[in-house]
Amino acid sequence: MNEVLIVGSVALDSIETPSGTIDNALGGAATYGSIAASLFAPVHLVGVVGADFPTEHIEFLKNRNIDLAGLQIVEGGDTFRWKGDYISDLNQAVTHETHLGVFEHFEPKLPGNYRDAEFVFLANINPELQLSTLEQVKQPKLVLCDTMNLWINIARDAVKKIFARVDIAVLNDGEAKMLSEEDNVIKAGRSLQKMGPKHVIIKKGEHGALMFSGDEIFASISYPLEQVVDPTGAGDSFAGSLIGYLAKTGDTSIGNLRRAVVYGSVVASSTVQDFSTKSLAALTMEEVERRYQAVQKMSAF
Amino acid sequence: MNEVLIVGSVALDSIETPSGTIDNALGGAATYGSIAASLFAPVHLVGVVGADFPTEHIEFLKNRNIDLAGLQIVEGGDTFRWKGDYISDLNQAVTHETHLGVFEHFEPKLPGNYRDAEFVFLANINPELQLSTLEQVKQPKLVLCDTMNLWINIARDAVKKIFARVDIAVLNDGEAKMLSEEDNVIKAGRSLQKMGPKHVIIKKGEHGALMFSGDEIFASISYPLEQVVDPTGAGDSFAGSLIGYLAKTGDTSIGNLRRAVVYGSVVASSTVQDFSTKSLAALTMEEVERRYQAVQKMSAF
Repeated sequence: MNEVLIVGSVALDSIETPSGTIDNALGGAATYGSIAASLFAPVHLVGVVGADFPTEHIEFLKNRNIDLAGLQIVEGGDTFRWKGDYISDLNQAVTHETHLGVFEHFEPKLPGNYRDAEFVFLANINPELQLSTLEQVKQPKLVLCDTMNLWINIARDAVKKIFARVDIAVLNDGEAKMLSEEDNVIKAGRSLQKMGPKHVIIKKGEHGALMFSGDEIFASISYPLEQVVDPTGAGDSFAGSLIGYLAKTGDTSIGNLRRAVVYGSVVASSTVQDFSTKSLAALTMEEVERRYQAVQKMSAF
Repeated sequence: MNEVLIVGSVALDSIETPSGTIDNALGGAATYGSIAASLFAPVHLVGVVGADFPTEHIEFLKNRNIDLAGLQIVEGGDTFRWKGDYISDLNQAVTHETHLGVFEHFEPKLPGNYRDAEFVFLANINPELQLSTLEQVKQPKLVLCDTMNLWINIARDAVKKIFARVDIAVLNDGEAKMLSEEDNVIKAGRSLQKMGPKHVIIKKGEHGALMFSGDEIFASISYPLEQVVDPTGAGDSFAGSLIGYLAKTGDTSIGNLRRAVVYGSVVASSTVQDFSTKSLAALTMEEVERRYQAVQKMSAF
């Protein structure tokens, strides 16, 4: 079975939402992405943590069929920590504190067998590190890239450079508008296509997602939720399950990409139903398939 | 062919949007609703204007197969005028001026043949007038009701009273949350269902629409637009074309209601592409069908 190579942040998050708070919980883009992808395919994770990273998280990830040979553990270093809230807006985090810790001097180094990866997910991380990771992969079949407003603000050229080299770029609507400098999400998608990715996927949270491929647009709805507990990691698990499904099926046709977007969306819908990775970690493929079919039924006419 | 009875405001609008301004242009919920419905079925309009209402608008509406026997023209009275802008937010009008004019003492009176109407659209207007209109209809087969934030604020009980008597209630997401006092749109839909309508449709602008019917949800996408010129009348033409399509087909099954929602959505997508009723008035059924099929293709997976 095809494996998925994932590089990105592994973190400890402290989060406040209208539903409550959680401190130093398992987080990070590569973490959410890997757990989500591992529902569908084996994962090779590339990242860095400090010696303070709890052993229970290491054990949990290993038990999910996530290979941690590429996870550097820096003795005496501190794991990346993020503190934020979603009190005023569940769709937009307010950052209180960011401690880069071991991320400050992180250089991704791919173990030998990682370099053969065909499905590569460059999760949210400094775009220079996304590039240096990609350069170590021999012959990728499909590369998916995520980013965030921070990098668009402080490293726009590097973001554009990596976008030019990927098959799929994934952003949320705010980031898409920011990077394209367009107010309209359709114009934004069209503009981002010109930067080079074969497919541009714009996530709209509860409002679904748009995928731009050549002249075609795919518009998916989201699985309806009566409550969002903690939106952290929704985008990472969307992208992780999307590429996990593509790796599992080995089919990168547009039709299969559409199905992958829906799988991404239903996995993300579970992620946000509890704090940190709790709900995602408990998610079964039975529930994924149930929600996938529900979305099919809800959007048919 | 089944006719559609529509009651609501007929107005002259002065509007400013990022695309420009227009003064004293044809507007009003019943106007947009009637033009949209007339794409599919003959319309009986119930409303009121003053002697200042331009004859050209009367001629235009008559030429669209819109029966104006129920349009009262008050000598010496002033047509309802609304002035507003969408400068800071294309999804939310800021009202500058409202001149009720002849609306202040309006009492809907249905001409004899109007009372046999089977498809009734209670467009946005004081809910007491919606009720008094409905009471004059002998045996409606399907009643659809729209409202707005103003009535939810100042006449909440009357809005609930009319909602209890209709088959379909249509609101935008902001209004749905306001009336249900729920922050989440899914919870809002569920809560509004309890007020009595068989179906609750929540419009989300560019993000599509949700229809709640018993335990079922239908989630439709919107036809993608690169530019919105003037959002005025989008909701009215959504509802007008929706009920027009139901009247034309005579089929009120849930499957056909889903198709009606998509027709409503594609007609609304045209309305917002120019000021006032310009784009809606120029819309052909060929273009409606083209967009309907485009939405089908864009949402299939």
